[in-house]
Amino acid sequence: MSNTPKVAVIMGSDSDYPTVKATISTLKSFDIETTVNVISAHRTPDKAAEFAKNADKNGYDIIIAAAGKAAHLPGVLAAFTVLPVIGIPIKSSTLDGLDSLLSIVQMPKGIPVATVAVDGADNAAILATQMLALKYPYLKDRLYDFKKGLEDGVNKKDAELQKKLEEDFK
Amino acid sequence: MSNTPKVAVIMGSDSDYPTVKATISTLKSFDIETTVNVISAHRTPDKAAEFAKNADKNGYDIIIAAAGKAAHLPGVLAAFTVLPVIGIPIKSSTLDGLDSLLSIVQMPKGIPVATVAVDGADNAAILATQMLALKYPYLKDRLYDFKKGLEDGVNKKDAELQKKLEEDFK
Amino acid sequence: MSNTPKVAVIMGSDSDYPTVKATISTLKSFDIETTVNVISAHRTPDKAAEFAKNADKNGYDIIIAAAGKAAHLPGVLAAFTVLPVIGIPIKSSTLDGLDSLLSIVQMPKGIPVATVAVDGADNAAILATQMLALKYPYLKDRLYDFKKGLEDGVNKKDAELQKKLEEDFK
Amino acid sequence: MSNTPKVAVIMGSDSDYPTVKATISTLKSFDIETTVNVISAHRTPDKAAEFAKNADKNGYDIIIAAAGKAAHLPGVLAAFTVLPVIGIPIKSSTLDGLDSLLSIVQMPKGIPVATVAVDGADNAAILATQMLALKYPYLKDRLYDFKKGLEDGVNKKDAELQKKLEEDFK
Amino acid sequence: MSNTPKVAVIMGSDSDYPTVKATISTLKSFDIETTVNVISAHRTPDKAAEFAKNADKNGYDIIIAAAGKAAHLPGVLAAFTVLPVIGIPIKSSTLDGLDSLLSIVQMPKGIPVATVAVDGADNAAILATQMLALKYPYLKDRLYDFKKGLEDGVNKKDAELQKKLEEDFK
Amino acid sequence: MSNTPKVAVIMGSDSDYPTVKATISTLKSFDIETTVNVISAHRTPDKAAEFAKNADKNGYDIIIAAAGKAAHLPGVLAAFTVLPVIGIPIKSSTLDGLDSLLSIVQMPKGIPVATVAVDGADNAAILATQMLALKYPYLKDRLYDFKKGLEDGVNKKDAELQKKLEEDFK
Amino acid sequence: MSNTPKVAVIMGSDSDYPTVKATISTLKSFDIETTVNVISAHRTPDKAAEFAKNADKNGYDIIIAAAGKAAHLPGVLAAFTVLPVIGIPIKSSTLDGLDSLLSIVQMPKGIPVATVAVDGADNAAILATQMLALKYPYLKDRLYDFKKGLEDGVNKKDAELQKKLEEDFK
Amino acid sequence: MSNTPKVAVIMGSDSDYPTVKATISTLKSFDIETTVNVISAHRTPDKAAEFAKNADKNGYDIIIAAAGKAAHLPGVLAAFTVLPVIGIPIKSSTLDGLDSLLSIVQMPKGIPVATVAVDGADNAAILATQMLALKYPYLKDRLYDFKKGLEDGVNKKDAELQKKLEEDFK
Repeated sequence: MSNTPKVAVIMGSDSDYPTVKATISTLKSFDIETTVNVISAHRTPDKAAEFAKNADKNGYDIIIAAAGKAAHLPGVLAAFTVLPVIGIPIKSSTLDGLDSLLSIVQMPKGIPVATVAVDGADNAAILATQMLALKYPYLKDRLYDFKKGLEDGVNKKDAELQKKLEEDFK
Repeated sequence: MSNTPKVAVIMGSDSDYPTVKATISTLKSFDIETTVNVISAHRTPDKAAEFAKNADKNGYDIIIAAAGKAAHLPGVLAAFTVLPVIGIPIKSSTLDGLDSLLSIVQMPKGIPVATVAVDGADNAAILATQMLALKYPYLKDRLYDFKKGLEDGVNKKDAELQKKLEEDFK
Repeated sequence: MSNTPKVAVIMGSDSDYPTVKATISTLKSFDIETTVNVISAHRTPDKAAEFAKNADKNGYDIIIAAAGKAAHLPGVLAAFTVLPVIGIPIKSSTLDGLDSLLSIVQMPKGIPVATVAVDGADNAAILATQMLALKYPYLKDRLYDFKKGLEDGVNKKDAELQKKLEEDFK
Repeated sequence: MSNTPKVAVIMGSDSDYPTVKATISTLKSFDIETTVNVISAHRTPDKAAEFAKNADKNGYDIIIAAAGKAAHLPGVLAAFTVLPVIGIPIKSSTLDGLDSLLSIVQMPKGIPVATVAVDGADNAAILATQMLALKYPYLKDRLYDFKKGLEDGVNKKDAELQKKLEEDFK
Repeated sequence: MSNTPKVAVIMGSDSDYPTVKATISTLKSFDIETTVNVISAHRTPDKAAEFAKNADKNGYDIIIAAAGKAAHLPGVLAAFTVLPVIGIPIKSSTLDGLDSLLSIVQMPKGIPVATVAVDGADNAAILATQMLALKYPYLKDRLYDFKKGLEDGVNKKDAELQKKLEEDFK
Repeated sequence: MSNTPKVAVIMGSDSDYPTVKATISTLKSFDIETTVNVISAHRTPDKAAEFAKNADKNGYDIIIAAAGKAAHLPGVLAAFTVLPVIGIPIKSSTLDGLDSLLSIVQMPKGIPVATVAVDGADNAAILATQMLALKYPYLKDRLYDFKKGLEDGVNKKDAELQKKLEEDFK
Repeated sequence: MSNTPKVAVIMGSDSDYPTVKATISTLKSFDIETTVNVISAHRTPDKAAEFAKNADKNGYDIIIAAAGKAAHLPGVLAAFTVLPVIGIPIKSSTLDGLDSLLSIVQMPKGIPVATVAVDGADNAAILATQMLALKYPYLKDRLYDFKKGLEDGVNKKDAELQKKLEEDFK
Repeated sequence: MSNTPKVAVIMGSDSDYPTVKATISTLKSFDIETTVNVISAHRTPDKAAEFAKNADKNGYDIIIAAAGKAAHLPGVLAAFTVLPVIGIPIKSSTLDGLDSLLSIVQMPKGIPVATVAVDGADNAAILATQMLALKYPYLKDRLYDFKKGLEDGVNKKDAELQKKLEEDFK
């Protein structure tokens, strides 16, 4: 059992990187060891299988996989591991992300993928951190702080809004 | 290069069999050698990879794969073979087959799946026969006969309708 | 930090119980302590808030929440806790579960819900077990066994299919 | 029973403000006292609960809530109050507002949200005014004037169109 | 200004009655005077216009309209009145109620319809009562009681579930 | 019975004019007398009713109506006339025209609207001309010419393509 | 120019007959000469082309075509004729009729199909009668009677409802 | 039986050319003889029928057809030939390609169209090559090379990503 949290972020195509960047930066903000790779379920299927099969013994706690269109990557990785797999449906140029979402979330009995919102890259990282906090208790404190930060952020926005309202509707 | 046409029919779950039966019987009606297996992309991923990797050298011409929900099977098989893969989206209990259809048809660049209608089991077999007729010319004659049969069938239905109309609207 | 895994299963309405039963039995098959409650985000909102706020200190590791239609329950619970929340979209009488799915999965930045398939009650339990295995290593062995069982199940179904095919197409 | 109409406009994120501005200006055009706040159902859930619980005794007649994606805000506020809650589904970057619409309108038995069109910010204010006119009869006269204004507006546009047609199709 | 609350329930077809019955019984449970009529926006358009035009002076406070398919009735009534109009989208035999929902909720600027869930007949009545409580304060007390009843109902269901769980999982 | 064909083009909002312009110019290209008006089913409902009621005796043969969102205009006009009504669903800023399409095409039994494609402004005019050709036989000749023109246009595009292909793939 | 109205009703499959029967009986109720045939755009494409090409000179005024799934029949017939073609989208076993509707209504520029509701068989006949009334004025009187009948029908249903209400809510 | 592979690429409109260009260049990269034409199922239906009827005897192995909206072209060509027909749904300005996809993929029993993703122009060519490799074995070697190239491409992108990550997250 490793002593530090370690997450694999896999994207099906390098074109997913601009979206997935938020996953990486959020994980790093929680000081979680993060490796990032482009591995395609369809173009490099052996590498995908290999990665997922060995992820547990390579010390990974969680796999996060992002993919678009017929987004098989998260499910394919989940097929080869018992680690939790988090899926990020990426919106592609047609069908507004509905294809990615359904391809990832509608997994059959026995092989779940923990699906977040279309393009929900930040939330994939938060969800991973919540899972990791089960094992690494110090992360739970970090999450309480993070949650407090969210609250403060909204309150600050509310205060700013009051000023804007005065200007716009004086 | 084999001398007789040979098609693999793979279904992701034995619950797909009632639908897929029409694929098998249609292939057999064209005297095409047909093997049928339950192989799951998610529950038996190694077997799926193995099957697809060896399909070419095992003398298969085409793979037909049926699956429902997040239907990755056809795409996963296509990832491991250069044989044409035909996908049958199976309607499951929710979302009316739209999830299966999008999961199969929206394949990314490089790895196509030849997709037929939701629950279009017969058409998967016809499409396979059309492909095989490129290699086995006698099948082309069979297809011309089949097409003639479709036409005759409609004309017969039309004749029967005229009688029914007389009864219903005399 | 508790010594045994403990999961809360919450459903928004007792009409969800026939579906959610599979979550409970699957969790119990992994010997995971499981409490089950009907708590509505809309009809008993204080209780929902209370439950989620105290879940961590009450020793829960994970919350699984099932709800249909405008399915706010998983997101509302997630708002009040840093524990991972798994959402099960329940298909209701209209719109085929699409409303439940989108209401659960499309969570805004900061508050993820790990969403499984529409009516994916078993997978919610498997996903919870995968998360718990981060903390309780013996569960990881159980999951490897479970995965092996899935594989054996498919292989058995494949063997049975061969017999059925002989009967149906002799 | 207060003597002047008072409406709370709540938005789940300050990014909703450009759309919600039309709600505020329309309410103000009817001289309805309007407070506006950013309160998130997920990031400031206690504040949301608190606000809704006290809205009645704080003299509010109606709450208008705007939110996007898994738009729980209107339903969550409705859970804590007996005041009418009007929901504005905000179109977000994916799924074209369908997620917001279904998350708001498909409320379960007992806790309705009066839903207007996606991005229907003006109509939320008109609907609020119609409700308020039950209690404050002078608003009914204002609404008759408003309705007359709508009619005049269309007639004016029709007259302008006649000129444009002459130019375009002379 | 009338002294008792009065609501008109209009349905586009008598086939909507089985669903709309819940609206009527819920309104009556709040002792709200309720008239019920079949008036079609398309088959009796003059009657629809007439009814809506006179609803205010005939002492109605609110109109509730239920319709399916291209469900124009609520919007057509709203066009002729300044009273709040609540729309109930009725699920018809095709398209699962999505046509009804969009036809009712997507009203253009100036003429809102307060839309509830597909087949949300009870909620239309609750929403009407919430609006009426602005004018008839005693209804607000009734709504607090009703809300308490919802809460008690869920709690009772939760207690019953505990027994059922003991039986099912002893 | 009038001696020249006459069509009314009605749009629900002047913002539909850029799309509807193609209807007008196509009708004029067939020398069909065409009047064009902005009349809203919701903002000028009396005018809409009046127009449709008198359209027959005012010598109109057909009404073409364009509208977006909850697009009631074509159905509302159809309710008041026995003339054929052609509906053009206009794509609005959300839901990609699906709301307009379903609101127009899903008319209940008894009151049809002849619906064309989303933003199908030209086709509304062609369809009107086809209907008018039943009564004004010279229009049938014009339609045969038009159809020949369509064919010639495609053939010309095909010839141009051959040149482009030579450049692009020499 | 023929002296009596004549309509061709074409269905793509005899399985459409139970739905299309309402088209036939409604046309016959207006004493419109009606022929009915099963002709498939895909299985008897030459016959479809032949029928449509000759429909005008064979004295048909209008073609009504019903089809399901990838419902090409109405568009294919329209390609070969200048007569108005009315399309009835038939709901098939998957996708709830959305496939049929979009395949029929979304016709490209130049070749319209007058589309009615999914399974809107009666309305196809009413629409045909409205078109025919342009040429055969006696049909216009019949349509005014029909419209009066619709109105009377709703009024009768309203009267019956009043009795039912007394029973149900006494 | 011809000695060189030959594919017909047909597009319904020259506006499809920017998308279809990838089909042509991919086919040419495999040294497959390719003819390209604009033929409309609706505007040049005779030419479409003629082309498809003679495609087999004119030495074509496969037809690839691209079309948008109510995309009948692939199905119409398939009706007149026993050659495999591959359909490319083109995304048009409304409904995000869903209309094209359903119009092409949902073909009735007997007449399949091998459908690829919305705007999946490259994959149509790959799929054609896979089919052709059944008859022209040298293409199978080319496909193995192509597949290797896909894999190398992903691996190269992965290597490049590692550099980018170092820059972005140093």
